[in-house]
Amino acid sequence: PKIVVLPGDGIGPEIVASAIEVLKVVAPDLEYDEHKFGGASIDAYGEPFTAATQEAVKNADAVLLGSIGGAQDSHWNTLPRHLRPESGLLALRKALGVYANLRPIKVYEGMEHLSPLKPELARGVDVLVVRELLGGVYFDPERWINEMEGFNAMRYKKHEVERIARVAFKAAQGRRNKVTSVDKANVLEVSEFWRREVVRVRESEYSDVALNHEYVDSVAMLLVTNPSRYDVIVTENLFGDILSDLGAVLPGSLGLMPSASLGDGAGLYEPIHGSAPDIAGQGIANPTATILSAALMLRYSLNRPEAADRIDAAILRALNENPTKDLGGSAGTQEFTQTVLQLLK
Amino acid sequence: PKIVVLPGDGIGPEIVASAIEVLKVVAPDLEYDEHKFGGASIDAYGEPFTAATQEAVKNADAVLLGSIGGAQDSHWNTLPRHLRPESGLLALRKALGVYANLRPIKVYEGMEHLSPLKPELARGVDVLVVRELLGGVYFDPERWINEMEGFNAMRYKKHEVERIARVAFKAAQGRRNKVTSVDKANVLEVSEFWRREVVRVRESEYSDVALNHEYVDSVAMLLVTNPSRYDVIVTENLFGDILSDLGAVLPGSLGLMPSASLGDGAGLYEPIHGSAPDIAGQGIANPTATILSAALMLRYSLNRPEAADRIDAAILRALNENPTKDLGGSAGTQEFTQTVLQLLK
Ligand SMILES: CC(C)[C@H](C(=O)O)[C@@H](O)C(=O)O
Ligand SMILES: CC(C)[C@H](C(=O)O)[C@@H](O)C(=O)O
Repeated sequence: PKIVVLPGDGIGPEIVASAIEVLKVVAPDLEYDEHKFGGASIDAYGEPFTAATQEAVKNADAVLLGSIGGAQDSHWNTLPRHLRPESGLLALRKALGVYANLRPIKVYEGMEHLSPLKPELARGVDVLVVRELLGGVYFDPERWINEMEGFNAMRYKKHEVERIARVAFKAAQGRRNKVTSVDKANVLEVSEFWRREVVRVRESEYSDVALNHEYVDSVAMLLVTNPSRYDVIVTENLFGDILSDLGAVLPGSLGLMPSASLGDGAGLYEPIHGSAPDIAGQGIANPTATILSAALMLRYSLNRPEAADRIDAAILRALNENPTKDLGGSAGTQEFTQTVLQLLK
Repeated sequence: PKIVVLPGDGIGPEIVASAIEVLKVVAPDLEYDEHKFGGASIDAYGEPFTAATQEAVKNADAVLLGSIGGAQDSHWNTLPRHLRPESGLLALRKALGVYANLRPIKVYEGMEHLSPLKPELARGVDVLVVRELLGGVYFDPERWINEMEGFNAMRYKKHEVERIARVAFKAAQGRRNKVTSVDKANVLEVSEFWRREVVRVRESEYSDVALNHEYVDSVAMLLVTNPSRYDVIVTENLFGDILSDLGAVLPGSLGLMPSASLGDGAGLYEPIHGSAPDIAGQGIANPTATILSAALMLRYSLNRPEAADRIDAAILRALNENPTKDLGGSAGTQEFTQTVLQLLK
């Protein structure tokens, strides 16, 4: 199987290198095809996602991405919108057709003290956020900015809601069988439509899964005051962006949080966190999120659940035995990676 | 001065009654004109905001609102959208022209233990969220739902951004002189427009106030991991809905959180929390948020800062001396109100 590797910017290259070291132990037959992406590609070729890289991802079995973008005042942020690092990421998601972004949020036993929440609230949190990734205001072609106004369109069509709802219900069947669909149906027509389609998919295909509906503002509160109430959360692109980031801080470090973006072809795997330009090149970034993303890749795109389980188990022990700086420990990126490799042997 | 009182639904009538008892002590000359609103108005007259009530608020100096709406399975929620309680609230905001929603989020000294956050993160939090209240996806007339899709438009025009930016900068001048404008300018044109106009207003009118820009997903994280970094947050309607609710849980009970909605005429004052149908009529609701909203009314609409200060001080002491159930105490609505009245004398 061929993995396209996009290290990206900032700490991206360091953490992706760690993930590949780990992959080489549990899945030695994988082939890697590395390309510049995001800011690194802009600096080398003038655009974040070149035709050559587009070609490469089309022929990949899976794509492993580090992180993209620079600091607020980076020279990349003054470029026209379509040439910025973020536009490369959106175009990559579109090119791969990955409409379902899965972000597991898990507070590990014994690590509750890392959470910003009181330990009794953090304990046992285990939520899967399923974010629609190719629709809504992010991609709708009706969009403009001029002297007088800025405009974006929040639109969802039947097949877009259908396919993401299926992903959520199916995921819930492998978990605690409960889906919470998040919208703002008391105000927005697009949400009313979303809710109606989610209900329809459940009734015709997944009537064994429990479904409830909550408003996005209410979920923002409850993710803080009572996160354990959720099993699978499914929501549209923008709400999913906000809520999955909010949820991602509960375990105590963004450095722990992987993601998988799935469509009908190759999947895209990346840590939730950004490129952390402030600590790039210092060898102190926590590679956990990227290594766990690689495990998700083994699970979802390569159908190797045992290899994924091995990584998950090794990470859990390594986090306890030799934690990185963001977790209050002292291990650097390489030291932590070596601990994981030892534990895999 | 004439105050239109809209007790609304659920616990609304109980907590509004408390607020009026308090107002009668510190501002005995106010006149009250009470009207049914929301679900109560639907049940009595078939619509949430009748012509008579519209006429009344037009002639008011300020409007004091309890809370509206019912449980998820309430009969109100099966009505056509324009006849639901929420539509009454949106129409009320529009009728009053209140474009600026101010939600102060304050963790009181000695009450940090009530926060869902670790006490060291909750300590000293003092944020003012300024939410644009009459624009964006909430009100744009381009909206529909049909068999194939749901659609809403996220649009901001120059004068809409200008006027809310001014409110935020002015508020910051009376605080710690720092505004954070929240958008999703890395993806949305409407956000790019928002950001540009906010920058323009600052440069031409408020260059003494510090301004920075953050993405909405990032702010959702930082409000949990480091809320003390914020002074004034200004943002568009939908982001403001989500972030102000998220922020509102930090002090530990929604029962504490007031709001003021301001335009060029009469202001609208209401607690942030909902109508809590599960505890309605039991006499246990915490009236603090509504009493503090009445204090904001004295401050912003009636220009009586001393009366407002008296209420604020009495509430702070009452919360310590005789806390309500939601705060771990045992005082009911009336008992708490009596404590406040005693302290005012
Ligand atoms: C960088 C940005 C375009 C992206 C998004 O909003 O989707 C990021 O915030 C994410 O969540 O992956
Ligand atoms: C009830 C609803 C329409 C309202 C809103 O979204 O504005 C509420 O959530 C609020 O924040 O006041």
